[in-house]
Amino acid sequence: MNYDEMALQLHKDFKGKITTSLRDAGELTRDKLSSYYTPGVAAVSRAIADDPSLLPVYTWTNNLVAVISDGSAVLGLGDIGPKGSMPVMEGKALLFKHFAGIDSVPITLDVHSADEIVAVVKAIAPSFGAINLEDIAAPKCFEIEERLKAELDIPVFHDDQHGTAVITLAGLINAMKVVGKDLGDTKIVVVGSGAAGTAIIKLLKQYANPKIIAVDSKGVISEARTDLNDEKKMLMEHIHTDTPGTLEDAMTDADIFIGVSRPGLLTPEMVKKMADKPVVFAMANPTPEIMPDVAKEAGVTVMATGRSDFPNQINNATAFPGIFRGALDNGVKKITDEHKIAAAEAIASLVDTIDAEHIIPSVFDERIVPAIAEVIT
Amino acid sequence: MNYDEMALQLHKDFKGKITTSLRDAGELTRDKLSSYYTPGVAAVSRAIADDPSLLPVYTWTNNLVAVISDGSAVLGLGDIGPKGSMPVMEGKALLFKHFAGIDSVPITLDVHSADEIVAVVKAIAPSFGAINLEDIAAPKCFEIEERLKAELDIPVFHDDQHGTAVITLAGLINAMKVVGKDLGDTKIVVVGSGAAGTAIIKLLKQYANPKIIAVDSKGVISEARTDLNDEKKMLMEHIHTDTPGTLEDAMTDADIFIGVSRPGLLTPEMVKKMADKPVVFAMANPTPEIMPDVAKEAGVTVMATGRSDFPNQINNATAFPGIFRGALDNGVKKITDEHKIAAAEAIASLVDTIDAEHIIPSVFDERIVPAIAEVIT
Repeated sequence: MNYDEMALQLHKDFKGKITTSLRDAGELTRDKLSSYYTPGVAAVSRAIADDPSLLPVYTWTNNLVAVISDGSAVLGLGDIGPKGSMPVMEGKALLFKHFAGIDSVPITLDVHSADEIVAVVKAIAPSFGAINLEDIAAPKCFEIEERLKAELDIPVFHDDQHGTAVITLAGLINAMKVVGKDLGDTKIVVVGSGAAGTAIIKLLKQYANPKIIAVDSKGVISEARTDLNDEKKMLMEHIHTDTPGTLEDAMTDADIFIGVSRPGLLTPEMVKKMADKPVVFAMANPTPEIMPDVAKEAGVTVMATGRSDFPNQINNATAFPGIFRGALDNGVKKITDEHKIAAAEAIASLVDTIDAEHIIPSVFDERIVPAIAEVIT
Repeated sequence: MNYDEMALQLHKDFKGKITTSLRDAGELTRDKLSSYYTPGVAAVSRAIADDPSLLPVYTWTNNLVAVISDGSAVLGLGDIGPKGSMPVMEGKALLFKHFAGIDSVPITLDVHSADEIVAVVKAIAPSFGAINLEDIAAPKCFEIEERLKAELDIPVFHDDQHGTAVITLAGLINAMKVVGKDLGDTKIVVVGSGAAGTAIIKLLKQYANPKIIAVDSKGVISEARTDLNDEKKMLMEHIHTDTPGTLEDAMTDADIFIGVSRPGLLTPEMVKKMADKPVVFAMANPTPEIMPDVAKEAGVTVMATGRSDFPNQINNATAFPGIFRGALDNGVKKITDEHKIAAAEAIASLVDTIDAEHIIPSVFDERIVPAIAEVIT
């Protein structure tokens, strides 16, 4: 199905996707007005000014996430700027509300350097309970997230990195049960070394210490490469860098392929070079690195994509709502690798009968958000 | 009634005052999810990237105001910072929703110079349909508003200035009918030359060219003064500056007193020096420059305050919801003096039977917002 027309129509009919309402649904009497606004509200402001830790007790920040983007790396659209990216960020706000009951506000920025983005987010941060960074281009996204995490006293989470890493790990935990392998003994080829690929590599390494080969558009990231930027150089401590070569070279005896790159990159010939019982996570959107029927034909045992119309959808919306729900409810200030791993294990544990087509719970499974939130403490 | 306890309890019980919800209240099916988010939303983003004027067609910005403060001049509390000011800004969002159905987001800033505030607001502006500046200290508030109005393509309105000026003018229009005077022939003493006083002076001068004497904490603002900042010097073109003196001096033969200053400033003795049928707008919050019973005793004909427990409440909430409603609905990019005057006249026209205790419609009068919105074109 082509959703373009339906999307344009729905957005026009409803004039966007989110709206605000009052928490107190009762009649707004004069006394209430004098309590919610002047003069009564002054007592609440004074209480918070005296003790800023009361902010979430008395204001909507206790349930509020800022969804922040500069529109520089939006879906498959690239750099479409702050106005162009607004529908996606407002969509993220819809997902936050629908899946986890979280209030969120899409903020798209008309500044683009790491310094400017950090300065603006720091300036508005007192207004929010958590920060979700979204669709900000690599490599600046890494610096922005690191600096904000260090400087703010609320959780900062770049979903393109960590949401993707969490749900990928969740899928791999169950995929390993299907193929009867130990993740720590596998050889994994990760293609795409942007925000998602980098975070996936770091989390997998941290979780099970497998042998990871990273591939970018110029081939395997190895010590022989002289064209690597700082981010890719920093990635080298997490990956196997002894063997230069092409993607095709890297695929020999690989147990797992993880693609966050571009459509059609993985050929049946490459799949046939993989080890026994190959696992392929082809997550390029909207068209995967290899289509599921082609992959199965070439011998893939467990196949996952980013799409809802095939089995095993690797969808960030399975991960981030519960992670933020837990962080907000439990007063967590930093979301750590331990939190991400616990979230992945919680998600993986919800699949009742694991098989090749059931390694991930449905994004609509209502047990997911509470199960994740419980481990974000 | 002391509202402090009720305010603290209500804010705690409801965990703040506003929340978000989805515009489309129907079931969020898989097809809808694929339209509101990836892959369908990409078509909407592409459409806006190609033609940014479509932003309000497809996103919630069509009904969205940012309520922005740095918390530097909050109610009677002074500089209480971004967290302390959040309850007031969230209260403003409640008023926007309740009175005009407008979505708004309180953004309290952790930066305080004019340059920084302008930079941050410009950076986040693509996310909103209009900007309401609130409780930012004078004189920086003037520069911030001027620069943002010049540089942004959405309405920017500092409510402490212009909302107060509009509702004050509305009240004076009807007060003049009660006392049988022409506003252009009056002598007006305005005490307080911060955000509100400055805007009131400019709008009254523009509307009717009365003789205005401005008084600050050091006395009458006159050519003899050597201690005036740039803002007060610029104010001099709008006021009568020939006669130095004290507030008491200025009150001789004044027709109208307008106070946006501090409690108890106006004495019965000063009132007795005023011209026939004195009009007193004592708008210091929460305690007026003179209490209504004292003023009446001293001979005041028309008395107004900022309080809801006396007749003639001069309340910004009577003005700003309709002004923003009109600006958003009618695609107005700049709110001009002509808009403000039209809004004041629209408000004044809604009082059915004008007398000394009825110069302003109740803030709860549902005719107000549509009547104002209609003239903001």
